[in-house]
Amino acid sequence: MVRRGEIIAIGSELLLGGRVDSNSLFLMEGLARAGVELRFKSIVGDDEDDIVAALATAVRRVEVVLLTGGLGPTSDDRTREAVAKAVGKPLRRRAEAVLGMRRQLTMWGRKPTAAQLRQGLIPVGAEVLANPVGSAPGFALRWKGALIAALPGVPREAEEMFSAALLPRLLAESMASGAEQLERRILYTFGLPESEVDQKLAGIIPSGGPIQLGLLASPLGVLVSLTVWGKSPRQVMASTRKQGNAEHLDKTIRAIKTRLASWIYAEGSDTMEQVVGRYLADRGLTLAVAESCTGGLIGHRLTQVSGSSAYLDRVAVTYSNRAKSEWLGVPARLLKRHGAVSPQVAAAMARGIRSKSRVSIGLSVTGIAGPGGGTKDKPVGLVYIGVAAASSTKRSGGFTQRFQFHGNRETIKLRASQAALNLLRQWLVKTGA
Amino acid sequence: MVRRGEIIAIGSELLLGGRVDSNSLFLMEGLARAGVELRFKSIVGDDEDDIVAALATAVRRVEVVLLTGGLGPTSDDRTREAVAKAVGKPLRRRAEAVLGMRRQLTMWGRKPTAAQLRQGLIPVGAEVLANPVGSAPGFALRWKGALIAALPGVPREAEEMFSAALLPRLLAESMASGAEQLERRILYTFGLPESEVDQKLAGIIPSGGPIQLGLLASPLGVLVSLTVWGKSPRQVMASTRKQGNAEHLDKTIRAIKTRLASWIYAEGSDTMEQVVGRYLADRGLTLAVAESCTGGLIGHRLTQVSGSSAYLDRVAVTYSNRAKSEWLGVPARLLKRHGAVSPQVAAAMARGIRSKSRVSIGLSVTGIAGPGGGTKDKPVGLVYIGVAAASSTKRSGGFTQRFQFHGNRETIKLRASQAALNLLRQWLVKTGA
Repeated sequence: MVRRGEIIAIGSELLLGGRVDSNSLFLMEGLARAGVELRFKSIVGDDEDDIVAALATAVRRVEVVLLTGGLGPTSDDRTREAVAKAVGKPLRRRAEAVLGMRRQLTMWGRKPTAAQLRQGLIPVGAEVLANPVGSAPGFALRWKGALIAALPGVPREAEEMFSAALLPRLLAESMASGAEQLERRILYTFGLPESEVDQKLAGIIPSGGPIQLGLLASPLGVLVSLTVWGKSPRQVMASTRKQGNAEHLDKTIRAIKTRLASWIYAEGSDTMEQVVGRYLADRGLTLAVAESCTGGLIGHRLTQVSGSSAYLDRVAVTYSNRAKSEWLGVPARLLKRHGAVSPQVAAAMARGIRSKSRVSIGLSVTGIAGPGGGTKDKPVGLVYIGVAAASSTKRSGGFTQRFQFHGNRETIKLRASQAALNLLRQWLVKTGA
Repeated sequence: MVRRGEIIAIGSELLLGGRVDSNSLFLMEGLARAGVELRFKSIVGDDEDDIVAALATAVRRVEVVLLTGGLGPTSDDRTREAVAKAVGKPLRRRAEAVLGMRRQLTMWGRKPTAAQLRQGLIPVGAEVLANPVGSAPGFALRWKGALIAALPGVPREAEEMFSAALLPRLLAESMASGAEQLERRILYTFGLPESEVDQKLAGIIPSGGPIQLGLLASPLGVLVSLTVWGKSPRQVMASTRKQGNAEHLDKTIRAIKTRLASWIYAEGSDTMEQVVGRYLADRGLTLAVAESCTGGLIGHRLTQVSGSSAYLDRVAVTYSNRAKSEWLGVPARLLKRHGAVSPQVAAAMARGIRSKSRVSIGLSVTGIAGPGGGTKDKPVGLVYIGVAAASSTKRSGGFTQRFQFHGNRETIKLRASQAALNLLRQWLVKTGA
C-alpha cells in the first residue's frame, strides 16, 4: 500500500508566484522515503476559511497532509486557527511549545514578544513539534484518518522540523504497515530539445511496467526522471520483488546513459557547476573565466559551490571593449575587424584570461543577450564560447564553438552559461587523465 | 461581486519543486483586472483521475478555473482526456484546432507529427483557444457554473493565449455583471527584519477596512503589498466609491513611504538592479565592480537589465589574493596585515577597480560566504562593502560598511549582493543632483 500525500502551502504572497518553491523537493523526497507519494500540492492565501476548505479537500483524497507556513506571530498567520476550526478543537497555550520558543529566543539573546506568544497556541489533542532552528513551534494531529502536520514556511525550519519530528514517525508507521517505498533516479541532459530526448528514449521503458518516465525541459536542459515503487525493507526480507525493481531500474538507467551518452552532465542532486568543479579539483587544475554577455553568471554559478576557491582564480566580466583589451589583451584591431561577438574574439578572450591569470584553463563567452543589439548577421542569442588550455595538457591550444539561443535576455544568459560550463565539462572528459 | 479563481498547474515534474513559478503572477494580475480574485493554486501530476479530482474540487469553490499544462503531444499529457472525463463529453478532433496547429508549424517549416495531431482533440461543446506562439491549442467550456479554460504549460504560450483569447471574454463578463476590480501596490524594502517592518506599520491600516496588508520576507528584503477591491469602471461612472478606495490607497502608500523612508528601494515590478541602473543612466555615471564572496552575482544582476552596457564597464571577480593585487592594485601588505575580509581591503578594492577602469564609481564586496572559512573574529557571513567615487562628485573619496549576514552560502551571497546594490543606491540618492 502506498499512502498518498498533499502539501498545502499557506500565504497570500505565495499566490503571487515569481518565487522558487524550495520546500517541495525536500519534503517530497522525505515523504517518499517513508512510503508516502506526493500527489497534490495546494497553495492558499491567509484566509481562514480557504485554509479550512483546502484541509477538508486534502483529507478526502490523501492520508498525509503537510501544511507549511502561517505559523508566525503576525495577525495574518492563520494556520493555527484554521486547523482548530477544521477539526473542531479549541486552541490552548501549551507549555512545551512556549518553552521551546523561549529556549530558541534566549539563544539569540531575546525574549518572546506578546505577538510571539500567540505561537504557543496549539489545538487541543495535537502533538507539539519542536522547531530546532526557529521560534515557531509546529504541531501534528490525526483527523478523519489522515495525519495532519503544520510546519513553518521558512524552508530551513520546515526541513529541520520534518526530519527531526515527523520523518521518524512516518518511517515507523510505514515499517509497521509494510508500505512501499519510492525510488527515483534523475539524470540531467543538456544540448538536446525535449522532443529529441523523448525520441531517443522511445521503447526503452515498457508501458504498463513499474517504471514511470518523466521529462522536464528548462533553460538548463532536459531533466529525465525514472520512478519506481518497491517494497519496504521489512518486506524485502521475505520477497525479491524489491530487488527485481531496483535491478530493473539500474538496467534502464544504464540503457539511457548509452543512448544519451555525453548529453548527460549530472545525476541525482548534482548541478553542472558541482560536476565541473569536481573535475577541476580532482585533477588539480585551475580556471579563470572571461564573461561578456553572461555578465558574471558563470562566476556566480561556479562560486555557489563551497570550496570553489581551490580552483577558481578569477572572473573578468569585460562588458566594454576597453576592458577586453586592457584586462584580456584582446587586440583592438580584432575587435574592430570581427566585432566583439566573433569566434576570433572568443578565442582571444580565453587565451587572454588564461595567460594573464596564469591558470590551467581559460573559458570565455561573448554574445548578444538582447533584446537590443542584434543585426541580421549577428542576431540576438548568437553566442561564441572559447576554451584555452596550457600546451602541456593533452589537447593544447584552444577552440571555440558557436551557439544560437532563443528566449528572453534572462533565458539566453542562463543557456549561454550552461553551454559554456558544459563545453568545459565535455573537454575535461575528453582530455581526462 | 468578486468572482473567485483557481489555477491548476498540471505536470508530475511540477510536484518536484525547485522551479520558479513564472505563470502565476501574470495570470493573477490578468484575472484581477477582470474582477476575478485568485484564491487557490493547485499542482497535480499527470494522473488523469487526480486531474479530474482537482477540477471537481475547484468548481465547488471558485467560478473561474485556469488549467495550465498537459496539452502537449506526448502520452503523459492528460489534460484533454481528464477534462472530457470530468464534464462527461467525448473528445473530437476539431478542424480549427488542427488548422491553427498546421499554420504555426508551417511557419517553423514543419508538418504535424501523428503525436501532435492528438493536440487537435477537444471536448465536444468547448470553444477552441488559438495558440499564437506554439503548436498546442487550448480550449474553454462551462461546467457546473464555472468557466474552465485549458492553457499550455509554457509560460509565454499561456500568457499569449490568456491575453488574446480569454481576457477579453472575462472583461466583458465582468463589465456586464458589475464585478469589482483588484488594485495592488507593492513596495520593496531592504535592511529591516519582517517583525520591524510590521511594527513600523502598526496602526497604519485600519482593521476591517478595505485595504489588506501583506508582508513577505526573503533574502532580498521584505515585500509590502497593499490590496484593495474597487468597483469596475462602469460602476464608477455612477458612484465615487472606487475613487474613494484609490485615494485611500494613495494616502496609505504615502504614509508607509514616510515611515519606511530609505528602507524602500523599489515599487511595483522594479528590481534593485533596475533602480540602481536608472540612477546611473540618468546621471551619466559609469560603474565598475570588484566582487569577492559574491562571485559574480552583482555583475549578473546588473546585466539582467537591458541597456546596462551604457553604465557598467566591467566586473572583476577577484577570488584569489593574487587577482586582488594584480587587477585592483590592492597592496600585498594590506592583505597580509588585515586579511582579505577587512574594511581596509574593501576600500582598496573599490578605489582600485575605479581607478583601473577609469569609471565614476567603484563598488566592492569582500566577505566569507561559508560554510567553511569562518573564524571567531571573522565568522561566516561577515561582509565588507566599499564605495569609491571620483573626487569631483559631491561626497568624494569613499567609505565602507560592515554587515553580518546569516543563512547558507546561497543566502549570504544573495543578501551581500542586495546590500551592496542598496548601499550604492542610498549613496546615489544622498549625493543626487
